[in-house]
Amino acid sequence: MKEFVENSILKKKIHKDYINIRGNISNFLIPVKVIKISEHIVPEEIKKRTTNFEYYIYDTSGPYEKVDNLSNFQNGIKRVREEWLNSRTEIQSYNKGNKTIRKATNGERVTQRYYARKGIITPEMEYVAYRESIEISQNKIWIEWLWKEKAKDVLEKSVLSAEWICKQVAEGKIIIPSNINHPELEPMGIGQGLRTKINANIGNSSIRSGINEEVEKMLWAIMCGADTVMDLSTGEDINAIREAIIRNSPVPIGTVPIYEVLEKVEGKPEDISWELYRDVLIHQAEQGVDYFTIHAGLLEEHLPMIEKRLAGIVSRGGAIMARWMEEHKQQNFTYTHWDEICEILSTYDVAVSIGDGLRPGCIYDANDEAQFAELKVQSELAKRAEQFDVQVMHEGPGHIPMDKIIKNIEIQKEWCSSAPFYTLGPVVTDIATGYDHISSAIGATVIGSAGTAMLCYVTPKEHIGLPDKEDVREGVVTYRISAHASDIAKGLPSAFLRDCLMALARVKFSWEDQFALALDPEKSLKMFLESNPCVQDNGEKRINQNYCTMCGPKFCAMKLSKTKE
Amino acid sequence: MKEFVENSILKKKIHKDYINIRGNISNFLIPVKVIKISEHIVPEEIKKRTTNFEYYIYDTSGPYEKVDNLSNFQNGIKRVREEWLNSRTEIQSYNKGNKTIRKATNGERVTQRYYARKGIITPEMEYVAYRESIEISQNKIWIEWLWKEKAKDVLEKSVLSAEWICKQVAEGKIIIPSNINHPELEPMGIGQGLRTKINANIGNSSIRSGINEEVEKMLWAIMCGADTVMDLSTGEDINAIREAIIRNSPVPIGTVPIYEVLEKVEGKPEDISWELYRDVLIHQAEQGVDYFTIHAGLLEEHLPMIEKRLAGIVSRGGAIMARWMEEHKQQNFTYTHWDEICEILSTYDVAVSIGDGLRPGCIYDANDEAQFAELKVQSELAKRAEQFDVQVMHEGPGHIPMDKIIKNIEIQKEWCSSAPFYTLGPVVTDIATGYDHISSAIGATVIGSAGTAMLCYVTPKEHIGLPDKEDVREGVVTYRISAHASDIAKGLPSAFLRDCLMALARVKFSWEDQFALALDPEKSLKMFLESNPCVQDNGEKRINQNYCTMCGPKFCAMKLSKTKE
Repeated sequence: MKEFVENSILKKKIHKDYINIRGNISNFLIPVKVIKISEHIVPEEIKKRTTNFEYYIYDTSGPYEKVDNLSNFQNGIKRVREEWLNSRTEIQSYNKGNKTIRKATNGERVTQRYYARKGIITPEMEYVAYRESIEISQNKIWIEWLWKEKAKDVLEKSVLSAEWICKQVAEGKIIIPSNINHPELEPMGIGQGLRTKINANIGNSSIRSGINEEVEKMLWAIMCGADTVMDLSTGEDINAIREAIIRNSPVPIGTVPIYEVLEKVEGKPEDISWELYRDVLIHQAEQGVDYFTIHAGLLEEHLPMIEKRLAGIVSRGGAIMARWMEEHKQQNFTYTHWDEICEILSTYDVAVSIGDGLRPGCIYDANDEAQFAELKVQSELAKRAEQFDVQVMHEGPGHIPMDKIIKNIEIQKEWCSSAPFYTLGPVVTDIATGYDHISSAIGATVIGSAGTAMLCYVTPKEHIGLPDKEDVREGVVTYRISAHASDIAKGLPSAFLRDCLMALARVKFSWEDQFALALDPEKSLKMFLESNPCVQDNGEKRINQNYCTMCGPKFCAMKLSKTKE
Repeated sequence: MKEFVENSILKKKIHKDYINIRGNISNFLIPVKVIKISEHIVPEEIKKRTTNFEYYIYDTSGPYEKVDNLSNFQNGIKRVREEWLNSRTEIQSYNKGNKTIRKATNGERVTQRYYARKGIITPEMEYVAYRESIEISQNKIWIEWLWKEKAKDVLEKSVLSAEWICKQVAEGKIIIPSNINHPELEPMGIGQGLRTKINANIGNSSIRSGINEEVEKMLWAIMCGADTVMDLSTGEDINAIREAIIRNSPVPIGTVPIYEVLEKVEGKPEDISWELYRDVLIHQAEQGVDYFTIHAGLLEEHLPMIEKRLAGIVSRGGAIMARWMEEHKQQNFTYTHWDEICEILSTYDVAVSIGDGLRPGCIYDANDEAQFAELKVQSELAKRAEQFDVQVMHEGPGHIPMDKIIKNIEIQKEWCSSAPFYTLGPVVTDIATGYDHISSAIGATVIGSAGTAMLCYVTPKEHIGLPDKEDVREGVVTYRISAHASDIAKGLPSAFLRDCLMALARVKFSWEDQFALALDPEKSLKMFLESNPCVQDNGEKRINQNYCTMCGPKFCAMKLSKTKE
């Protein structure tokens, strides 16, 4: 975001960098954020060993350092995967209009899962292994300080190998959404043993927003820490928006293809056909969409179950499919054409996120017959997708009260062979309108701590209107809290470590370090400056106030208390 | 808040009222908020039985309807308990300056627990029984609609009797903080089987804010739903601020008396003496403070345990006591003088919130030896307090990762005989600076769902600076989300019911009902109007847009979906 680089305090504390890795398969540039930790808070034992007090953070923002210049977005960003893709013999290229498009040569498959099941480690897998381990390998000195004699053990267990990633991808426990037509992608993985990921939904609706706003929202999302972005646009510019987003996105882009199909039939679900849907899938696969949400688990026989609900169907895609089935008195065509869909997915390596069209839309409907009936079908579809080497994750709810959340992940793990679970919140109460990023972050942290692989964010505007860029920021940062807290609960040492550095900064009143280490450096600094008016952001020296207006100088517990070094 | 009454849409949907109850002991006016549910969303079976479509909500805002007029705060609010207190023979009055003060006559006790242990039901107990049941007794028609044949059972189980409240108070499982010098109080209970309560901390610091701001913050807190308010002021005006707050507060007011003591010795902890402390306790008890936080569980022998910590002591009261013990090389004087403290508390019926001076201040320190050593002492102190009929609750953390939260409430229940637990958050990660209302609401909902009786809010300014009134609002509403979600998880039918009414409003696109039923009607309406610019708040008729800008008219799942009536 703009203030990221312009604020002089943060500019001196945080910078973006790429770590140059020489792997076995390829060389990589792994993106990181680097924080300069102030010497005065560094424990003595570290000072004895080094003068490099940097701390490295996993980074999702690709080549971007600020968002205020969108004039060049037509050119797209650097194509980091170009060489790898060029060297794959299973891939052919063809021209369509002025674009070159990649697909599998006839009869071949090009999915990460295909290679993994053959025991072939791809550059993408190796990249993910290094990227997931970067906060461990680069922060070794801090790990040795914190864990002392246990540090060796922590380091050994936490640095992931490409072989391990490959095995998980083969078994469907990790996916690497990476369409061969999205060479701009910095590969990332979703699944067990990895950092909990978050997705940000953007996209216009027919009555609001346009191409510039949506590209800007994507940039805000990844600057704040979104690991993937779903473009849920539904208006007229749907294709141009998607193209601009993909060409400028270093993170996987997901879509719900039925939205474009409905756009093509002018909003009449009954006019949708399999052929139209198939063509949209191919078109979006050619554009480079990394994963599709497909509501193939919602069947004709589930519709009567909806009658018992208070809120019926609240998934847009689910509602469209339900309407189509009712009008045509036929089975869900994405279910009946599932094998053909899988063929398309494996031709471009589009991962599938099997949608939960029957996710509950209110607490009353949570964990009902309809919801679990669909999940059962999701698990069957996943088994069929495996035959086509398609990478699969499963979408989950929705609106679930606290006492019913854990059952969702337990059943999903059991029925779906520990394939990645990807949940929307869940919100834990229906009455938090205007604060649903919070009500949903509560549920997300519970289900994330229990093993959910990716959390789909919810913004304050949920249930009210289309999020703007400030809502995107609020939603993404809130979900990074959920994901990070989940990672601490899951036992990821890198997550725990960052909190311990924050504690060091707190007890030493090093405000600059606190802001730099925070999930939203800009906002926390801004709030500090506003509520401590005597402090100036002159950028020349550190803020040396050893209290804040919360307690004032006399009542600060930190000042009175003893602390460990 | 101001916009509450001034917004024409909400003005027609929500009003404040008092339900007139004829009890066995006394007559009561129980405060409620009344929402007029729009006819077009009311299920047919209700319409057949009545034309009164009101929905009643528990209310904490006392006599206030708006906050924009603070000019009269010198007069104080209505003294609803005056008659009850006047009729108690165990109470004597005396004059001090121009004030009349109540205390127990010599040798008597006047605590709710004293009466309860004798089997005497007080008006306060009966008031609490009716108040806790108000969302059940007044919403009978909605309960019958939702639970059908099970409604009778729900109604029977959920309407609490004064006898039951009395028994819980006797056993120390529920407290009713109600100083006999706080006649303005509308009694409320904290403990098992009751609605989860939330506390809002206000109070100036020596370098910010004054009397008007703090009274205004108190009003904002209770308008938004705070069940109790702690005045944590530490500056020069500490007495005048407290007096103004108590005289205008319909909710219990808590304090940490050591703050005033430290103020008296000009910030030098070593100059504190038991006598000074005792005099402050008596003075504040005479003013009408309903509960004191006293850090009596933090002992000399715990101090070496702090050496192992990263963040040391982060409780202000705890840090002061620790410093005093170090300087004097003596045991904590609130521990050694505990019996005398209990005598004072039982003379005025001040409840005690036994402070957790060693609560962890970072994730690293969570659930450590120091923390549990103090909790053990807290439980011993509670047993001694019982001998004096003192009402007791226990304070809890703090900073706890997701996987360590449940252990806190389990141990507290076991060691402290299910006395009310009162936790600060806990925050589930240290790196959410600027968003700690969210990181703590996550932990609060987990521990609330597991049985915590009262949740102490955290505002976005935590760790940064003194909250202003907007922070108070954000913190209170966030914690109402946590408390409400906890109540759903605890199985309180009234909590679940409100969510179901919200679902009715959502599926019928009744925006006015959605905002009225939301935890923050004003903010949700404001956000809606901002992001749906075509809708005008002309106040003349309902908003009849049957979609929002999130999905636009074509893509709304609710429009496509079938629903139950």
